[in-house]
Amino acid sequence: MELYDCQMAPNPRRARIFIAEKNLDIPKRELNILEGENLKEEYLKINPWGLLPSLVLDDGTVITEAPCIFQYLESLHPEPNLLGKDPIEKAQIQAWERFSEFNGSQAIGEFFRNQAEPLADRAMPGFSGLAQIPELVERGKKRASWYYDQLETRLAQSKYVGSDRYSAADITALCTIDFGKRVGLAYPENFENISRWHEEVSERPATQV
Amino acid sequence: MELYDCQMAPNPRRARIFIAEKNLDIPKRELNILEGENLKEEYLKINPWGLLPSLVLDDGTVITEAPCIFQYLESLHPEPNLLGKDPIEKAQIQAWERFSEFNGSQAIGEFFRNQAEPLADRAMPGFSGLAQIPELVERGKKRASWYYDQLETRLAQSKYVGSDRYSAADITALCTIDFGKRVGLAYPENFENISRWHEEVSERPATQV
Repeated sequence: MELYDCQMAPNPRRARIFIAEKNLDIPKRELNILEGENLKEEYLKINPWGLLPSLVLDDGTVITEAPCIFQYLESLHPEPNLLGKDPIEKAQIQAWERFSEFNGSQAIGEFFRNQAEPLADRAMPGFSGLAQIPELVERGKKRASWYYDQLETRLAQSKYVGSDRYSAADITALCTIDFGKRVGLAYPENFENISRWHEEVSERPATQV
Repeated sequence: MELYDCQMAPNPRRARIFIAEKNLDIPKRELNILEGENLKEEYLKINPWGLLPSLVLDDGTVITEAPCIFQYLESLHPEPNLLGKDPIEKAQIQAWERFSEFNGSQAIGEFFRNQAEPLADRAMPGFSGLAQIPELVERGKKRASWYYDQLETRLAQSKYVGSDRYSAADITALCTIDFGKRVGLAYPENFENISRWHEEVSERPATQV
């Protein structure tokens, strides 16, 4: 098994943390997205759309996308449970993960990718060939602000994002907001609940990867 | 159990087809998105972001989003299997479903929502308050065209979208491309593989809902 990885991108980090929480030892191969290594022929043979992460199994089967890698690894290594212990918890953790993907990660990506110089003709992930649209910088900012508001409300009601315990929804939210911080869209400092939660999950050894 | 539904929207249709494929009899409550019924207080108590579909269980637990509803119902009613029989098939069906969500449904939504008059200040699903951006009409068109190209390639290699048999990935692709057709972004008529597949899955009684 091998993970195609990228240190600077939020989605590969989700996979790295998940793997570390499961105490698995999976070799990683680093690709540089800003230099377009994910769009070179060698990697396009593995993932024709140039997206990261990908998990390549020993027989050559490729599993793409963080949540699909999560599901695959959890089925092989059920403990510690990160995706839910019963059907309702599973559905709720998945919904909160999707909340961070659609409202957080996509918003921050919209803000970042529509202004970052090396991505001038790659305004969406992968092999898009789409030009930047400057208005989306502002829209991404508004959407991220809405995401932080909702996350703050959620964490006022629940100790963790997806459930009453740490789960994949926390991994995804952490990678989303750390990515936001790095590209200039940090959550407001006075958001006490996100701050309390962020401090706690950031202390987990698995999140240091 | 009750499904909050909307006949004209692609995501509630995914849930309706899934429920019909499982031969389940779940009452449905229709909300009109264009008239903003999903943003009225009554529904916001169930789903604070006004998104559809939602499945409300008898004890009041709410499960939101089509894939989470799929997962919940499949765990209660495993047959016929629609989400995958083993870890690899599960990961692949999920990845192909996400392919239609991120590249198909979001592209077509971008094209439609940034020009439809009733959605002038709701350019994204739910309670967004985001203004339309006319450039996204053209971008949505380009993205949808890329999606159809990739789907045509996939269906040249595989009888069905997610696996070698009918699955949730076919339900999601069908709802996506039928929505595209309705808003003026149909797949090209000379795409033989999509046409062959579309004809077959459209004949399934469950897809008539």
